[in-house]
Amino acid sequence: MPVADQPPKPARPRTGIATVCLSGTLEDKLAAAAAAGFDGVEIFDPDLIAAPWSPARVRQECADLGLTIDLYQPFRDFEAVPPDVLRANLRRAERKFDVMEQLGVTTMLVCSSVSPDAVDDDDLAAEQLHALASRAAERGMRIAYEALAWGRFVNTYQHSWDIVRRADHPALGLCLDSFHVLSRGSDPAGIRDIPGSKLFFLQLADAPRMDMDVLQWSRHHRLFPGQGAFDLTTFLDHVLGAGYDGPLSLEVFNDVFRQADPRRAAVDAMRSLLALRETLGPAGPAQVREPELPSPPDLAGHAFVELTVDEASGSQVERALAAMGFAHTGQHRSRPVQLWQQGTARILVNASGRGGDNPGVTEVTGLAVESADPARSARRAEALLAPELPRTHAANEADLAAVAAPDGTAVFFCRTGADDPASWLADFIAMGVPRGAGTGLTAVDHVALTQPFDYFDEAALFYRSVLGLHPETLTEFAAPFGLVRSRAVTDTKRQVRIALSVALLRRGEWAPGVRDPQHIAFATDDAITTARAMRALGAPLLEISGNYYDDLDARLALDPDLLAAMRECGVLYDRDENGEFLHFYTELLGSRVFFEVVQRVGGYAGYGAVNAPIRMAAHRRLRLARGAQP
Amino acid sequence: MPVADQPPKPARPRTGIATVCLSGTLEDKLAAAAAAGFDGVEIFDPDLIAAPWSPARVRQECADLGLTIDLYQPFRDFEAVPPDVLRANLRRAERKFDVMEQLGVTTMLVCSSVSPDAVDDDDLAAEQLHALASRAAERGMRIAYEALAWGRFVNTYQHSWDIVRRADHPALGLCLDSFHVLSRGSDPAGIRDIPGSKLFFLQLADAPRMDMDVLQWSRHHRLFPGQGAFDLTTFLDHVLGAGYDGPLSLEVFNDVFRQADPRRAAVDAMRSLLALRETLGPAGPAQVREPELPSPPDLAGHAFVELTVDEASGSQVERALAAMGFAHTGQHRSRPVQLWQQGTARILVNASGRGGDNPGVTEVTGLAVESADPARSARRAEALLAPELPRTHAANEADLAAVAAPDGTAVFFCRTGADDPASWLADFIAMGVPRGAGTGLTAVDHVALTQPFDYFDEAALFYRSVLGLHPETLTEFAAPFGLVRSRAVTDTKRQVRIALSVALLRRGEWAPGVRDPQHIAFATDDAITTARAMRALGAPLLEISGNYYDDLDARLALDPDLLAAMRECGVLYDRDENGEFLHFYTELLGSRVFFEVVQRVGGYAGYGAVNAPIRMAAHRRLRLARGAQP
Repeated sequence: MPVADQPPKPARPRTGIATVCLSGTLEDKLAAAAAAGFDGVEIFDPDLIAAPWSPARVRQECADLGLTIDLYQPFRDFEAVPPDVLRANLRRAERKFDVMEQLGVTTMLVCSSVSPDAVDDDDLAAEQLHALASRAAERGMRIAYEALAWGRFVNTYQHSWDIVRRADHPALGLCLDSFHVLSRGSDPAGIRDIPGSKLFFLQLADAPRMDMDVLQWSRHHRLFPGQGAFDLTTFLDHVLGAGYDGPLSLEVFNDVFRQADPRRAAVDAMRSLLALRETLGPAGPAQVREPELPSPPDLAGHAFVELTVDEASGSQVERALAAMGFAHTGQHRSRPVQLWQQGTARILVNASGRGGDNPGVTEVTGLAVESADPARSARRAEALLAPELPRTHAANEADLAAVAAPDGTAVFFCRTGADDPASWLADFIAMGVPRGAGTGLTAVDHVALTQPFDYFDEAALFYRSVLGLHPETLTEFAAPFGLVRSRAVTDTKRQVRIALSVALLRRGEWAPGVRDPQHIAFATDDAITTARAMRALGAPLLEISGNYYDDLDARLALDPDLLAAMRECGVLYDRDENGEFLHFYTELLGSRVFFEVVQRVGGYAGYGAVNAPIRMAAHRRLRLARGAQP
Repeated sequence: MPVADQPPKPARPRTGIATVCLSGTLEDKLAAAAAAGFDGVEIFDPDLIAAPWSPARVRQECADLGLTIDLYQPFRDFEAVPPDVLRANLRRAERKFDVMEQLGVTTMLVCSSVSPDAVDDDDLAAEQLHALASRAAERGMRIAYEALAWGRFVNTYQHSWDIVRRADHPALGLCLDSFHVLSRGSDPAGIRDIPGSKLFFLQLADAPRMDMDVLQWSRHHRLFPGQGAFDLTTFLDHVLGAGYDGPLSLEVFNDVFRQADPRRAAVDAMRSLLALRETLGPAGPAQVREPELPSPPDLAGHAFVELTVDEASGSQVERALAAMGFAHTGQHRSRPVQLWQQGTARILVNASGRGGDNPGVTEVTGLAVESADPARSARRAEALLAPELPRTHAANEADLAAVAAPDGTAVFFCRTGADDPASWLADFIAMGVPRGAGTGLTAVDHVALTQPFDYFDEAALFYRSVLGLHPETLTEFAAPFGLVRSRAVTDTKRQVRIALSVALLRRGEWAPGVRDPQHIAFATDDAITTARAMRALGAPLLEISGNYYDDLDARLALDPDLLAAMRECGVLYDRDENGEFLHFYTELLGSRVFFEVVQRVGGYAGYGAVNAPIRMAAHRRLRLARGAQP
């Protein structure tokens, strides 16, 4: 195919995704990439080899889906080899050029060699790559040479650029991959000095920091941009600053994404690119910024949390809220939804689950944030591909915009102020009950949601990007039924906190039912006093083993009076370099929900993860004691 | 508790397991350890802290279960610290001695420090450990000091022994952990020079070889002995040779075991110890060898493989076998079981699934090996805790011993010889059909079983130890729906081959139904001729994408005639340093079974894993084409 057949260059960089990022067969992957709105794909050779379609048919299918094929990576270990190996490699390349011709793709990726056949000779590498580029050019194609982080001799972008410069052939340029550059700690600033015309392709991947073999790290643990620890904003800024004008293409090898539904993974991937482009800011090239992405409005805390209950759990939740000092202050005008309030903590108890499709299910089904501009929040969410939820309000009710988070939780954007004509509070008929003294709860501190295994990283990116939150440190801890990974996202003022957790390995049959509880944590200024007040009202607080307090004493030598009060009230303890954390839990209410009360002293920023195993063991024991199967 | 209260020393070393090896709460773990027959446990502090039982109650519960408590590990980072930290550490130790007194345990584990408070001063470390040992001795207790592989200053057993020797206190000795010694590549021979009386405790763990941070390797990937790559036989030989006479105790941190059913994991653990003791052989101390473990009889291939079918899949399987050149040679005297034969390959088609409990299920439910001594094979399996299956033969039928493998497959021990009065063949009424020419199949080459996620390592150890087989190399490959790990076990003559595979991460909802196929591979001396014969008979052979052959040509430049024949017949290809492999597959028959035909040329020892993704993609496409949901 002549190069002139390339599609016209769009104003903003095109988006792309490598088929290796997604699960399924080639048909599944192409359909998912197109549905998520990608402009193009990189075709990974094993996907093509296993496909029933000829390369020409693949070209047609992509065209029908509106996808270009931007890159093909059919082999490795090409350069700096003895003559007989070179001959075989060139034969192989010609065969793959045949395939590329059928596919209609003009750029072939060649990674730096890891072969034992290769020698450490840059001139030889340049000479052989020149030969390959000459053959490619004869067929209207070009070669993008990439330094693998674990390449035998060539493993930095500086080195690959040096070889490309030596080879000096117009059909030979570089492919840059953010993982290979950033995993080695290379300074990406030097990329800016490479002529943009020699940057043939850009692959983007994020990754968590891991202390392991770089090849294994790359093959199993890459993430979409914004899900890991790399500074891709600076990296991309340098690449675009050098004049690169090809697609921003994702190449993410990840064990979880490899087996997740490709339709969801592709949306997650596209969202990561939209959010990355936004971070480039005004300093970045103008055409790259995302003009359609409305900036995130300021948030001012949790407006409400909605629990969906069934008949039995509904009564249990109502009794628990009453005993925790909440007042039932409102009843929805048109739906079976109660409003319970204490301080600014508001819980909606939605009984539409009663006798409905899911008897026995008690869940956090909605999460509302106070937005300075709910309409803009909704537009931003839509631009970030959040599925909009149908609005089912009556004519005289507030028109709350809501989108679905990856686990199905509805996320609402609200203004609660009683003076606000758009306030959702007006939908509730005041019950005229006295608010009472309460038990000291002031607000929702955080909402903790256990995520479906395949969607943990997607969920963190979703909340972060849609709500404009910041990720906190990833933590891992050993719990009775396996390891748990946890990450919270918060706003800068820490008024909205969403704590996400997931099993490190997807769980099986053992210990079902205690695997994925969700909870709502309320803030107090005095956990001991609140616990005593709740206990007096008969709240179903969780009993904590005496061994826990003996160990606290052994470890931390806390003030004996405080320790005695904590022991009496079932209050747990943690501390970090900034402050202390006192907290306690209720029993499980229905299938998977419980409440927590937390007191933050000083600047403690965590969530008491160290004590989660104690809570899990206690919840399990209660379930067994009440007749659940082990 | 005075040391005199220790139980009397048994003739053979006692067995033990750390509670951290098993999933669940302390109650679950103790029950599982006792049920699997362990003599004692090590109690991991977090398990005790989360338990509702007081330490005295734990002691009683253990006694009721017949378990001793052999070790308690309540803290780390004790030694070589400034005076104020030492004071806090000693206070903490005294609190933990209180707990030990209640538990009735006399040995406390102290790992070498990883604390930033610690200094590199062996004399100070020795002096402070001496102080700790003195306090322990006052209470009839002792300290076992262990070098962590990632200890800040002390990370080899030689170094920990040097410090213990300097400290020179009778209540201070060593704990050896095979992981910490072997992960660093330390030569365990030096252990033999340490007085046995100073070896206070022994922890055993295996692990796969991994190129990663040793702390992460240890915390996530340890295995029970025989499941990894360490030479534990030699290690244990040195420890026992030094005069160690304490328990052989397992300490295995493993992400999968942490969430698997603890009752199964404990049996797996005990089996690993029984098999390890057997490997010590006559050179090991006499009292350590396992006198009750009958040696594995010689095996002479697969006697039969049993498929359980339902109505629809039964007809499908019968048609496929006929078209593959098998003859229906026998009918079971009392049960709806057909015998199909070609060469020495024998398939039982068991229709007792028809209309039964599991309509729609087609499975490999039985696997029979030719044993030189079936009765001894059965005794060995029983001694290795294999669950015996009920024998349901009629009075005049062969009494085939069978045990259940971890995935539920029945494993039979047989003698097939027609002259043998005990032959199971006599249970079948000959059909009097001519055997015909067949299609060139000579025998069963291997049986490939996808394992339940939690039991992959258990399954490999089960087949290896029960049948006396040898593990082959672990391989991993990327398949359309996620990464797959595979390991085969074979006898030395390679007449029995069982190939086990599992998803690297447990799969979720995406792509159900193609996740866990099982298959039976038949041997031929000429795959092309066999494929042509089967095709002529109408066998449902799997079509392979033309792209596959284009790639084979590009990569390997095979003989064009061979390539053309392979392309025509859907035959796939692999080679290794010893030989070549030609193979082809059938379509899926029923829910999860297919057949394979393989030709091994020269010494090729693999299973064509490189081609498995091609097969998986093709199977998925057929299912979708036939109306399954994506």
